[in-house]
Amino acid sequence: MSALPTHPLFDPSDPVFVVHEGGKVAVHATSRLRDAADLSLLYTPGVADVSRAIAVDPVLADVYTSRRNTVAVVSDGTAVLGLGAVGPLAAMPVMEGKAVLFKHFAGVDAVPVCMETGTVDEIVDAVARIAPTYGGINLEDISAPRCFEIERRLNERLDIPVFHDDQHGTAIVALAALLGATEVVEKVLGELTVVVAGAGAAGVAVSRILLSAGVEDVIVTDTRGVLGPDRAHEEGLPPHKAALVRDTNIRGITGTIGDALEGADVLIGVSGGSVVERDLMRMGPRAIIFALANPDPEVHPSVAGRFAEVVATGRSDFPNQINNVLAFPGIFRGALDSGARAITEEMKLAAAHAIAGLVPHPTADRIVPSVFDERVSPAVAAAVARLAGR
Amino acid sequence: MSALPTHPLFDPSDPVFVVHEGGKVAVHATSRLRDAADLSLLYTPGVADVSRAIAVDPVLADVYTSRRNTVAVVSDGTAVLGLGAVGPLAAMPVMEGKAVLFKHFAGVDAVPVCMETGTVDEIVDAVARIAPTYGGINLEDISAPRCFEIERRLNERLDIPVFHDDQHGTAIVALAALLGATEVVEKVLGELTVVVAGAGAAGVAVSRILLSAGVEDVIVTDTRGVLGPDRAHEEGLPPHKAALVRDTNIRGITGTIGDALEGADVLIGVSGGSVVERDLMRMGPRAIIFALANPDPEVHPSVAGRFAEVVATGRSDFPNQINNVLAFPGIFRGALDSGARAITEEMKLAAAHAIAGLVPHPTADRIVPSVFDERVSPAVAAAVARLAGR
Repeated sequence: MSALPTHPLFDPSDPVFVVHEGGKVAVHATSRLRDAADLSLLYTPGVADVSRAIAVDPVLADVYTSRRNTVAVVSDGTAVLGLGAVGPLAAMPVMEGKAVLFKHFAGVDAVPVCMETGTVDEIVDAVARIAPTYGGINLEDISAPRCFEIERRLNERLDIPVFHDDQHGTAIVALAALLGATEVVEKVLGELTVVVAGAGAAGVAVSRILLSAGVEDVIVTDTRGVLGPDRAHEEGLPPHKAALVRDTNIRGITGTIGDALEGADVLIGVSGGSVVERDLMRMGPRAIIFALANPDPEVHPSVAGRFAEVVATGRSDFPNQINNVLAFPGIFRGALDSGARAITEEMKLAAAHAIAGLVPHPTADRIVPSVFDERVSPAVAAAVARLAGR
Repeated sequence: MSALPTHPLFDPSDPVFVVHEGGKVAVHATSRLRDAADLSLLYTPGVADVSRAIAVDPVLADVYTSRRNTVAVVSDGTAVLGLGAVGPLAAMPVMEGKAVLFKHFAGVDAVPVCMETGTVDEIVDAVARIAPTYGGINLEDISAPRCFEIERRLNERLDIPVFHDDQHGTAIVALAALLGATEVVEKVLGELTVVVAGAGAAGVAVSRILLSAGVEDVIVTDTRGVLGPDRAHEEGLPPHKAALVRDTNIRGITGTIGDALEGADVLIGVSGGSVVERDLMRMGPRAIIFALANPDPEVHPSVAGRFAEVVATGRSDFPNQINNVLAFPGIFRGALDSGARAITEEMKLAAAHAIAGLVPHPTADRIVPSVFDERVSPAVAAAVARLAGR
């Protein structure tokens, strides 16, 4: 390792950089290698017997290789955190961070795979080609709308679970939090009016899981305003937004986010933009605001608190942290343990209910368990595994 | 992990299979994750600072991610050990074994990447696409002649070292052993007549490194016999063999391997076939035989000993084990530490001399150091690093 450069971009003595020196993950051998006898078991000639057995019966690869417990955390660096298309190298620290969380919370061996970006075809081909190495694929920080087709096509092509965490991890945890928050404000999930601010990866997935969970009145907004009937024929409207126009907004609302918020019970911000007070003011009584953009929520909690009874963010320094880490480790633990070939909609719903179920008496300040609650990952894993093979 | 199946292919209580249960490598986190403060350093929001810094200056990825110490061990499972095209799943135990050796002998974090096979273009594209994740690429068990073009094109395209171990690891260690053996039989390297039996990946690389090292009289054979002038216009002769016809065999020998062995000083078997006694009988005095096929040498050592003064194999149960593990861990250690962008011919020669140099007084039973000699990897690494940047 070369000496640390002095650098205008950062202070190498900053604890964030200190903890990142040399990276955050490493490989270790699970068996001892002391002498020639060990070498002949772990490597030639012994290993040939294992290869030969797997060649005849590929199922044995799940027993005698690391594959069954290994997940690739795949990114092309096109939508990294809120930073945008910073590329595969700059995505590495995030993917390594995920690998640390996978191991810590669920014992899953996750390896970063950061790739040069390309067309949907190229990304799908590359991931599918290396897929035999892994028991599952966690897609991460891939820009919309490419992420939708990449995930769909990989799921069609591969017989291992493919899960875009920015979509479904966020959606699962948001639903879990909404289950808790709804109880706090004494409302009924199916009767809520929910405004989802943002029609990117997270916005689409949050909207979809709310519909699956029985929320009938979901309104989605993007930077141009409400995805309403007036936009059905908008030129250049991408397919994922056209689908939202078709599947959401049962009351046919049009206009601005302020119009959507008129009397609304819930605002879920997944846009990275901001929502102004004049719009928030229009929300109904006993409202719920989830402002999930990181690190800057769409509405600061101190502001949101004036318009809503329950407030949640993605941040650890406010109550009610809605963080994907409540979901993805357990999701993959359950899928790998049960041999699930995909993460189904039913599994996502079950995972959300499992998370919510760990807070049986939610309060305004505690609608989801802590990310360090050790019961979370096993509960999610069990909920997922129970549905495998159905 | 599911219960072990009872299986006709093997005995699950066989120590080889016991040691392979669950695979041989795992991921571990190098930093502590105890509380929200740690989480905010390792993951959001802290990690965003690191990503942002790398986005501005990509060189920082070598300091603040695992990339710089991580090597992908890439195979498409088309030429696994002596087993042939058994596929990516059956290749996994071998690649995991390499990863164990990388870590044990050189502290390199190596991860298996086993891919579905495809055209040369497809393999090159897939490896190049995921390359940002790694500090180097170790190609392994890819069939000839595809392996030659895949390696060449990846080396052209990538600015990290790409090294096909079946070629160059074998060649480096064979040359190291030949340096020792030549001293034992009191001959001069440049004056040797060497017959290389096998014109696949290892045969080509061994022949090339011998020429680079100053051996003038190298004769290569394949299943049809000597690669001599009579074969220059053979229909369907692949380019790598045509190149050997051009570059080797200065005496213009034609015929069988027996004709090549007439008066020869050295036989290096890398064919996986066998060489019969009637041919070995034709070798010159104080001969050297390296029979490197694994697990079944081209000539059994007890037979080879009747025709040669120095005998070596790839096996650990005979003297003079010629095993790639003497080379590849140190090769990558040196390349990663020095930031080398490729493994040059000079580095390969230097590595061979470094290995040989650890046995200053070779004997017929000890021409190379033991694979467990802890001086080997640092010596090879130093030899490689010294030449980086030239």
